[in-house]
Amino acid sequence: MIPRYARAEMTNIWSAETKFRIWFEIEAHAAHALAELGVIPKEAAKIVWEKGSVAEFDVERIDEIEREVKHDVIAFLTHLSEIVGPEARFVHQGMTSSDVLDTCLAVQLKRASDILIEDIDILLEQIKHRAFEHKYTPTIGRSHGIHAEPTTFGLKLAGYYAEFVRARDRLVTAREEIATCAISGPVGTFASVSPKVEEYVAHKLGLKVEPVSTQVIPRDRHAAFFAALGVVASSLERFATEIRHLQRTEVLEAEEYFSPGQKGSSAMPHKRNPVLSENVTGLARMVRAYVMPAMENVALWHERDISHSSVERYIGPDATITLDFAIGRMSAIIGKLVVYPERMQKNLDQTQGLVNSQRVMLALTQKGVAREHAYRLVQRNAMRTWNGEGPLIELLKADPEVSAALTPAELEPLFDPSHHFQNVDVIFKRVFKD
Amino acid sequence: MIPRYARAEMTNIWSAETKFRIWFEIEAHAAHALAELGVIPKEAAKIVWEKGSVAEFDVERIDEIEREVKHDVIAFLTHLSEIVGPEARFVHQGMTSSDVLDTCLAVQLKRASDILIEDIDILLEQIKHRAFEHKYTPTIGRSHGIHAEPTTFGLKLAGYYAEFVRARDRLVTAREEIATCAISGPVGTFASVSPKVEEYVAHKLGLKVEPVSTQVIPRDRHAAFFAALGVVASSLERFATEIRHLQRTEVLEAEEYFSPGQKGSSAMPHKRNPVLSENVTGLARMVRAYVMPAMENVALWHERDISHSSVERYIGPDATITLDFAIGRMSAIIGKLVVYPERMQKNLDQTQGLVNSQRVMLALTQKGVAREHAYRLVQRNAMRTWNGEGPLIELLKADPEVSAALTPAELEPLFDPSHHFQNVDVIFKRVFKD
Amino acid sequence: MIPRYARAEMTNIWSAETKFRIWFEIEAHAAHALAELGVIPKEAAKIVWEKGSVAEFDVERIDEIEREVKHDVIAFLTHLSEIVGPEARFVHQGMTSSDVLDTCLAVQLKRASDILIEDIDILLEQIKHRAFEHKYTPTIGRSHGIHAEPTTFGLKLAGYYAEFVRARDRLVTAREEIATCAISGPVGTFASVSPKVEEYVAHKLGLKVEPVSTQVIPRDRHAAFFAALGVVASSLERFATEIRHLQRTEVLEAEEYFSPGQKGSSAMPHKRNPVLSENVTGLARMVRAYVMPAMENVALWHERDISHSSVERYIGPDATITLDFAIGRMSAIIGKLVVYPERMQKNLDQTQGLVNSQRVMLALTQKGVAREHAYRLVQRNAMRTWNGEGPLIELLKADPEVSAALTPAELEPLFDPSHHFQNVDVIFKRVFKD
Amino acid sequence: MIPRYARAEMTNIWSAETKFRIWFEIEAHAAHALAELGVIPKEAAKIVWEKGSVAEFDVERIDEIEREVKHDVIAFLTHLSEIVGPEARFVHQGMTSSDVLDTCLAVQLKRASDILIEDIDILLEQIKHRAFEHKYTPTIGRSHGIHAEPTTFGLKLAGYYAEFVRARDRLVTAREEIATCAISGPVGTFASVSPKVEEYVAHKLGLKVEPVSTQVIPRDRHAAFFAALGVVASSLERFATEIRHLQRTEVLEAEEYFSPGQKGSSAMPHKRNPVLSENVTGLARMVRAYVMPAMENVALWHERDISHSSVERYIGPDATITLDFAIGRMSAIIGKLVVYPERMQKNLDQTQGLVNSQRVMLALTQKGVAREHAYRLVQRNAMRTWNGEGPLIELLKADPEVSAALTPAELEPLFDPSHHFQNVDVIFKRVFKD
Repeated sequence: MIPRYARAEMTNIWSAETKFRIWFEIEAHAAHALAELGVIPKEAAKIVWEKGSVAEFDVERIDEIEREVKHDVIAFLTHLSEIVGPEARFVHQGMTSSDVLDTCLAVQLKRASDILIEDIDILLEQIKHRAFEHKYTPTIGRSHGIHAEPTTFGLKLAGYYAEFVRARDRLVTAREEIATCAISGPVGTFASVSPKVEEYVAHKLGLKVEPVSTQVIPRDRHAAFFAALGVVASSLERFATEIRHLQRTEVLEAEEYFSPGQKGSSAMPHKRNPVLSENVTGLARMVRAYVMPAMENVALWHERDISHSSVERYIGPDATITLDFAIGRMSAIIGKLVVYPERMQKNLDQTQGLVNSQRVMLALTQKGVAREHAYRLVQRNAMRTWNGEGPLIELLKADPEVSAALTPAELEPLFDPSHHFQNVDVIFKRVFKD
Repeated sequence: MIPRYARAEMTNIWSAETKFRIWFEIEAHAAHALAELGVIPKEAAKIVWEKGSVAEFDVERIDEIEREVKHDVIAFLTHLSEIVGPEARFVHQGMTSSDVLDTCLAVQLKRASDILIEDIDILLEQIKHRAFEHKYTPTIGRSHGIHAEPTTFGLKLAGYYAEFVRARDRLVTAREEIATCAISGPVGTFASVSPKVEEYVAHKLGLKVEPVSTQVIPRDRHAAFFAALGVVASSLERFATEIRHLQRTEVLEAEEYFSPGQKGSSAMPHKRNPVLSENVTGLARMVRAYVMPAMENVALWHERDISHSSVERYIGPDATITLDFAIGRMSAIIGKLVVYPERMQKNLDQTQGLVNSQRVMLALTQKGVAREHAYRLVQRNAMRTWNGEGPLIELLKADPEVSAALTPAELEPLFDPSHHFQNVDVIFKRVFKD
Repeated sequence: MIPRYARAEMTNIWSAETKFRIWFEIEAHAAHALAELGVIPKEAAKIVWEKGSVAEFDVERIDEIEREVKHDVIAFLTHLSEIVGPEARFVHQGMTSSDVLDTCLAVQLKRASDILIEDIDILLEQIKHRAFEHKYTPTIGRSHGIHAEPTTFGLKLAGYYAEFVRARDRLVTAREEIATCAISGPVGTFASVSPKVEEYVAHKLGLKVEPVSTQVIPRDRHAAFFAALGVVASSLERFATEIRHLQRTEVLEAEEYFSPGQKGSSAMPHKRNPVLSENVTGLARMVRAYVMPAMENVALWHERDISHSSVERYIGPDATITLDFAIGRMSAIIGKLVVYPERMQKNLDQTQGLVNSQRVMLALTQKGVAREHAYRLVQRNAMRTWNGEGPLIELLKADPEVSAALTPAELEPLFDPSHHFQNVDVIFKRVFKD
Repeated sequence: MIPRYARAEMTNIWSAETKFRIWFEIEAHAAHALAELGVIPKEAAKIVWEKGSVAEFDVERIDEIEREVKHDVIAFLTHLSEIVGPEARFVHQGMTSSDVLDTCLAVQLKRASDILIEDIDILLEQIKHRAFEHKYTPTIGRSHGIHAEPTTFGLKLAGYYAEFVRARDRLVTAREEIATCAISGPVGTFASVSPKVEEYVAHKLGLKVEPVSTQVIPRDRHAAFFAALGVVASSLERFATEIRHLQRTEVLEAEEYFSPGQKGSSAMPHKRNPVLSENVTGLARMVRAYVMPAMENVALWHERDISHSSVERYIGPDATITLDFAIGRMSAIIGKLVVYPERMQKNLDQTQGLVNSQRVMLALTQKGVAREHAYRLVQRNAMRTWNGEGPLIELLKADPEVSAALTPAELEPLFDPSHHFQNVDVIFKRVFKD
């Protein structure tokens, strides 16, 4: 976790305080269920809850105990008994440490998912707002970095909107994957703890029951979770890359917001760098990097080995905190993005109507000109436009062979950009569903 | 694609013949829709379908044309006109090559998904069969490779069953992600082709409409698809690793099937190597490797660049063919797995009852022995068992302090393995739902 | 291996014919050494060489035998005996299959390295040629995609030259890593074959002796090899990305060569897409993807398992063939790159002298103007230039406060671009060392 | 950085204090060079060094300034001026922030390499010690997890020794790759700073000069660096996997050291888990995961973008700290590894001489028995041994057909394990070179 790329709410999920609080809840709920089943005294379960739920867990004290006993869950339980008193001995009956650790991780990843989904919702809101603002702002569409045909800036944004709706769906699925509770004992047989305990704790924590666990919740769930995050990060990278391209000096169709006082560079006012988008690009690489170790974590040996544990200590916080920060940053970029419609138009005009050459060609053939000849007619004028001899429409009007087939009045509408925008509304309806 | 790791049905999806057949269908369906919209003559669309649907496309001829025109779709269309005649000129109106290429890829990946899902169904069937066969076959559960508590071999398999049910769900979701149709023209604006064409073609091909495309179908879909395959492969790796462990000379609880004539090694009959499972392990690494380039493909520039294309020429076939083969191989391994229940029992007995030490301890405390003292009582006998002085139960019976609290009759049931299997049925009901 | 991204020389290394030829050489050289040691008859070794070295190995026949015996090396040896006669029984004495397979892979990867190094040499030659051609062609240096300070196009290329010199060094190191011979028997103990055989075969094949093998040559060597290829591919990606940027419609400082007849797009002459560079970008992703499975191959179990084998059947050919093709393509791109110095100058002029603002500021302070005030003086004029009110130098000359400190004659040299090029020669000497 | 997987010395390299100290040294050395060149007053450079070299840099103060100016290097320079006084204005002349940042990173990675190389030296020492201790301790060699032929535990260790000698070489190469200094100004042209400054600073910091930089040191160097770390981590994974296998309950040939008081599990003395090796396995996954983003960092745009920066804030510390910890842990594991030669022998004996079947077969053929018949003779006895009817040698002695060819006195030496160890010394000489 890098503080400069971390936000408090997500970071808190991974604090020792939060972890111990969740551990307590798991143990206390389990104790309640055990008491209901008559395994432990109801009074004990009640005292555990009453004292524990209002207590502060002393992280330093727990660490101190852990240094001694070299076992984190035992250290916690020892500290719990310091708080709760002798009734604490009824806690954790028939359970194994992983029951607590894995269910806790499920709670943490579920909460992390909640935040990430909220992040996406905010981003979607920003994109939608800007998309409608620029629904009909003409801009050049580019394939291979080369001008292709006109589109609108709103349409570009609609594409990102749809992509982040998919990102949201993936996070919802990922949350579903990960939100399971396992309290099934040392090798998952429920030999010493009733499945009813698991069911109760799952219910209280808003998790589903893990149908069959070994000692651990199977790690294919986590692999799918982190893979989903990697895909979402890749979508962020695409969006960030778009902004970076648009802000290039020669393009300059949009810019990240610069606060009035902010200095890109001492005296060069054009030196406003898309550093936020570049940052998102780098952060996406990191979130993606965590996919592979998550996948390698799946093949634990037999009923479990503990190789996944160190990996998750890294990627649990790092992937979620980084992605949360990156989505938040992307929202800020889009929300405040400075858009330059005039420059978009200027860039559009740069090829002086060449982008309409195919429409002219089609019109010529519809007028009876043979396809191959139409092609040659257009091309010879297009080449002159490209060589700087004037806008395509002017050259076409002046070309006798062309004017023989198409009058100026017939040529004009072929250069009307609104042709390209006739279905913008259809697409918007598909995407925004309103 | 490595022939030795490829099966015909999946490989065929990626053949040139299949590709051109799908291209034809896209073009012909689009022509039909264009005709319905009055853009091209209905008769033309009809002829295209009638002649093209019964024709064989000549891959070598198309390649020959491509070498000349350096454009695959144009080469195909040229060949199509050789087959269909002059009506072919009405085909592809207002469309762009990517409309054909991307929709074709969607069809191929959808078909690949269908096969993969069938593969999983077969694997599930095999696992289920073996799970019920060994529902109550006792075996030792291991954490960290070390004996922990008893479980059953059926329960182990139930865990894999549940994991591959999740794998199936992921493939269904992946198929859903990928199965979209885009026919939207050079930058996705439908400037020259009606969205209705897209809708019709999508319908005919069993795809959904891509709500908003640029020139291409957005690659986050493909990233999610290949990521799902990577997760499934990782589950295969876990299963293969389990078999490899079980077949180790010192463990030998199960073995891949060896045909009577097959030689592991000249004269060493024990040299039967789990080579199929090792092979699956390696194949899983490959399927996983294709996730990263699929994710890097997402951030195409603006409305598209073509960097993704070469990547997909590799990973499209390689990931699906390899995973298909690996699942098939896993099914064969499980279906024919030779299981040695006696050896499982022998291994279980190896620790001479130590796995029940915690149950004894608990029983002692329930008889009023202080927890710490109970621990010492059990441990001193457990240490002797571990040092080879006899089964734990015998030593406990002979320990006066223990027998003061627990009679032999009370000790016996604590070593009854059925205790560990009391909830096997509950878990089976959860997993197999019948 | 994708035929369209494959060149014959590299592909041949991975053919069955080449493989069997190398197997033969290993076996024949080993037989010679065994004969010298008196283990087998000298006459037998001689006959093996004489008959085998002139024979064609029949791949289909070997495959046919393999289908029967299910073992590739045995199938080959059987076929060898069909060629050589009864003396073939003296071949392979005390050896294990991996001795042949791993040493063969070493030979193949070594030869592949040779080709890759030659590829880089050709690329270096192309870059060097173009670098000297454009040693003093002014162009804008860009950070964050934004104009920064002038540089020369030759200097840009010098940077790539230096990077590919490093790439070459890495390939030389990688070749060194991989070029070892192991003939040490089933678990690497030389129990049944003298180390002298290994030494002799290594010598004959131009390999070093593997100091200690298990059954296999340790896979950290291969991981290092494929990692080196991944780094080289990443450098190609950087170079390809540069070309793609330079060819953007708005920048257009350089273009991939288009043959006169080639059509980017029907009638739009500007639609010349940097498809080769985009292709190299995609291929780089693939070469990089093969790094991870190569690293996962390292941790084989004990003296070996065979999980690495399937991985290497993919990545051996795929990584080397793809990288070979990509380097070759990059050489072609650079060799024929169409460079537009006028456009570079035009882009340079786009910011009308703003790139010199810092030099003016420095000059002002040297004339005694306080740093903060100098900053304000420059900035107020820079802002006007940026807003389109004229070249910076003109505005500065017209600014009384500025002219009070700097005469026009003193201002002029501050806008002399040659200032930026004063050390180009120093850098060229460092890089090209001549 | 995860505190529990971090050691102080390596962590300190990445502290803010260390970073600012290195920044100061770069600036102060550069100032000295600038003074020698007459660009700034010698007295100023002297004062900067005298005051700065004894000062403590106040990290919180610098952070405070950064929050205001939003630029880390400027914040540092401002704080430096608070310490040094007005002479600080002569610092950083003609330099760009990246000159400081990238050269600092080079120093940090070089120092990190130094530590990692020392770590490997310690590990090598431990392995060597244990290898000689067990040079002739017989143990079974295993391929595919199945018993193959005998080897010695020392020989196994010799293999790891050789692997970590290679790991060391890779780290030395990686250090060489990374240890360069760039002080070349905004786009690497040395427009405002003499190359002599770079040369001087490089010399003082023990770095080489970067022959040609853009604004940044090219990132292929860093990619190669982190790739090397990934390979080393993979070797650690192999070693850790070996230990995990050896400690399995059924194998138990070696165990991680357990301190007398340590509890694996309450009352089950056999429950001593190889948790350290499992931990190293997980850590290896993480170090490997950092390779891919490092490679993706290479393709920065033009003279640089800043996407690499966030990535390096993660992987710089995380990869080096994690690998340092993992190597250290591996040294501890090996140094204290509890080895059980008796158990190794017992496992060896498990197959009752089957591992010698091939030697018997060979001896039979040397006695004139036809190869195929020899094979059958051995196999029929081997199958009986495998089925539990007695040690192979006894059955062979009792087989009249075998005894007709081989007397008991001739059979005995074929079962002498020392045969397998005849070349152990040769290998040790190759590996340990003494």
